[in-house]
Amino acid sequence: MAKLYFRYGAMGSSKTANAIMVQYNYQERGQRALLVKPLIDTRDGGPVVGSRSGLQAPCIYMEDFTPAIAEGYDCIIVDEAQFLTKDQVKMLVSIVDDLSIPVIAYGLRADFQGNLFEGSHWLLAWADSIEEIKTVCWCGRKATCNARIANGKVVREGEQVVIGGNESYVALCRRHWADGDLGPQKEDPEHTAGSRRSIRI
Amino acid sequence: MAKLYFRYGAMGSSKTANAIMVQYNYQERGQRALLVKPLIDTRDGGPVVGSRSGLQAPCIYMEDFTPAIAEGYDCIIVDEAQFLTKDQVKMLVSIVDDLSIPVIAYGLRADFQGNLFEGSHWLLAWADSIEEIKTVCWCGRKATCNARIANGKVVREGEQVVIGGNESYVALCRRHWADGDLGPQKEDPEHTAGSRRSIRI
Amino acid sequence: MAKLYFRYGAMGSSKTANAIMVQYNYQERGQRALLVKPLIDTRDGGPVVGSRSGLQAPCIYMEDFTPAIAEGYDCIIVDEAQFLTKDQVKMLVSIVDDLSIPVIAYGLRADFQGNLFEGSHWLLAWADSIEEIKTVCWCGRKATCNARIANGKVVREGEQVVIGGNESYVALCRRHWADGDLGPQKEDPEHTAGSRRSIRI
Amino acid sequence: MAKLYFRYGAMGSSKTANAIMVQYNYQERGQRALLVKPLIDTRDGGPVVGSRSGLQAPCIYMEDFTPAIAEGYDCIIVDEAQFLTKDQVKMLVSIVDDLSIPVIAYGLRADFQGNLFEGSHWLLAWADSIEEIKTVCWCGRKATCNARIANGKVVREGEQVVIGGNESYVALCRRHWADGDLGPQKEDPEHTAGSRRSIRI
Repeated sequence: MAKLYFRYGAMGSSKTANAIMVQYNYQERGQRALLVKPLIDTRDGGPVVGSRSGLQAPCIYMEDFTPAIAEGYDCIIVDEAQFLTKDQVKMLVSIVDDLSIPVIAYGLRADFQGNLFEGSHWLLAWADSIEEIKTVCWCGRKATCNARIANGKVVREGEQVVIGGNESYVALCRRHWADGDLGPQKEDPEHTAGSRRSIRI
Repeated sequence: MAKLYFRYGAMGSSKTANAIMVQYNYQERGQRALLVKPLIDTRDGGPVVGSRSGLQAPCIYMEDFTPAIAEGYDCIIVDEAQFLTKDQVKMLVSIVDDLSIPVIAYGLRADFQGNLFEGSHWLLAWADSIEEIKTVCWCGRKATCNARIANGKVVREGEQVVIGGNESYVALCRRHWADGDLGPQKEDPEHTAGSRRSIRI
Repeated sequence: MAKLYFRYGAMGSSKTANAIMVQYNYQERGQRALLVKPLIDTRDGGPVVGSRSGLQAPCIYMEDFTPAIAEGYDCIIVDEAQFLTKDQVKMLVSIVDDLSIPVIAYGLRADFQGNLFEGSHWLLAWADSIEEIKTVCWCGRKATCNARIANGKVVREGEQVVIGGNESYVALCRRHWADGDLGPQKEDPEHTAGSRRSIRI
Repeated sequence: MAKLYFRYGAMGSSKTANAIMVQYNYQERGQRALLVKPLIDTRDGGPVVGSRSGLQAPCIYMEDFTPAIAEGYDCIIVDEAQFLTKDQVKMLVSIVDDLSIPVIAYGLRADFQGNLFEGSHWLLAWADSIEEIKTVCWCGRKATCNARIANGKVVREGEQVVIGGNESYVALCRRHWADGDLGPQKEDPEHTAGSRRSIRI
């Protein structure tokens, strides 16, 4: 019986790298797994998913994806699933229930203000299995929140999604997120800015 | 480090019985655990949580509950947590983060139309740990959906919460929920009606 | 596809109560679930499983259980599964794989010296799903170890299973188990002894 | 409170790649995470862990690892943990409990005959958290078993660990493992042999 999986994790928890490895594992066993991502995520400059650690793989856009396409595959893997619309999540449910093809969706749970994204909202409501991909805050505790940073400071207000801005994001535990505490400053600000800039949504 | 747990399950997955047993286990070890439920749930006729299997325990109403009360306990256990407001979930987060007292919230995930409840919405967004309490559909598959039944038929329209109506609820797998399929009719309709009537929200 | 579940938990984590509730839930949906326990557990005075919280249900002994019996059921639920032999766990695997009947086994993980039981050993090796039933130490941390107590003190040496002795058992976190620290003494020794005596294997 | 995690998965479930990514995530947040592996695993030709997908990272050998070394780190990550001895697992427990440093151990659960490895045995007995890393059989079902293959056939007898042999391993679901069914033959035997040869223990 096929299932809809929602694997959620904070910024920088290796969701994309996991998605790519799951596809790799399917293929190694002679199975076909399709990577899909919503068009809103343009950081990779085309239909490609890429992880911070360097792994990359071609994908198709969610906007071009249909149940008819799904029928050629043994598994559908969705990256950046927080950006899905309710109707797109409905389509994934139908692929699972009507075509018996498993769907594994990777995404953030909540935005920088602690509100669910549209995609996460409906995946949390309907997924057969909700699984966490863990990562750590700078303090070593589990990071469950995503902070938006502009000019080195935690930002509290703004649109849920900013395309083309120079904001960056970092995962924090809930206490440091609430306090806006980004931890001890690094000696090399270039390095810090760089590593944070690489974590984008 | 204290955590906020959201343990969700469909109708009839023994959430209340689990809540009572967790309190029992705390008390057996000399720890104090407080049971809390929102006032909206009046089926037990007072500040009591009661499971279908017969277990019962006194509780206090969420409306009377404050962080000051929490300070006297080692653990806070919330039943019917789907009915919490956003502000009440915020208070639970603060009890976890500011008072370091663990909070375990039991509740439904989605209503009879597949929409999140207010309480589940914010618990899914903010919980440190999301855990499923499993139960089965009449077909033996895992039940993840809640169907509302009136006059022996699955109902699709109506308010999210009906107080004092004669609707009943039953947990189904997603396919049978989508099809409105309640399974083979029992020979003894009294028994069927009775067991379904006992599963209420 | 049927699965073999191993749900492990320390002493007093409500494993038996959970087993009874799962049976109750199956029956409420018109499904048949059979409770089975190994004969070694004679505390209930017959083919009955009973939880400390008072829930009770009839069962059959593992020694009388066969695949032919299993065929009449939708689910097999095993209590005190740590006491199973390797061959009995093999039979459960075959019921899952050859008869497609799900088996849910509840049991302890390790004995009072930290060694796996024979049943837990093979369930941990072969289960399709390993799930923890959590409980707490007297200090509030998760309890993962089982201490044997005789004359109010933690005992380190002895047989894995003692039938008819007056030892008792209590769940502790690993640090307090390693230290043999049973926590602050209760004012009422009768109560303490009583609550501990009720937690037996 | 630090924890000992055992993340088990069948052959080819990306355990090593996950270990490397967890280290990457720690380092990105300014934390220090040490990779350790037992010396028995010589496939990478030195103190390096390498995944089939190409990710690589330096490590130290378990045989050279001591609690004193651990004290310089925020997290210890162990790969190929099935090969640990009981005493090495004990040392990991002590690093968690006495030094409060989290330890994440990745490894196989059972060998090609379905028996636990020494390392997995004690990690399953003592870990604070047991988590599965899933992968699939060629048939699409979850793979939980590891088959040893020699000359294109599943082998049933032999030593648990063979160093320098030309055996290969492949993950199968329990039914296909029991049947010794490796699935439909590929047209390109070179490719098949190659992909299987790359999955070694």
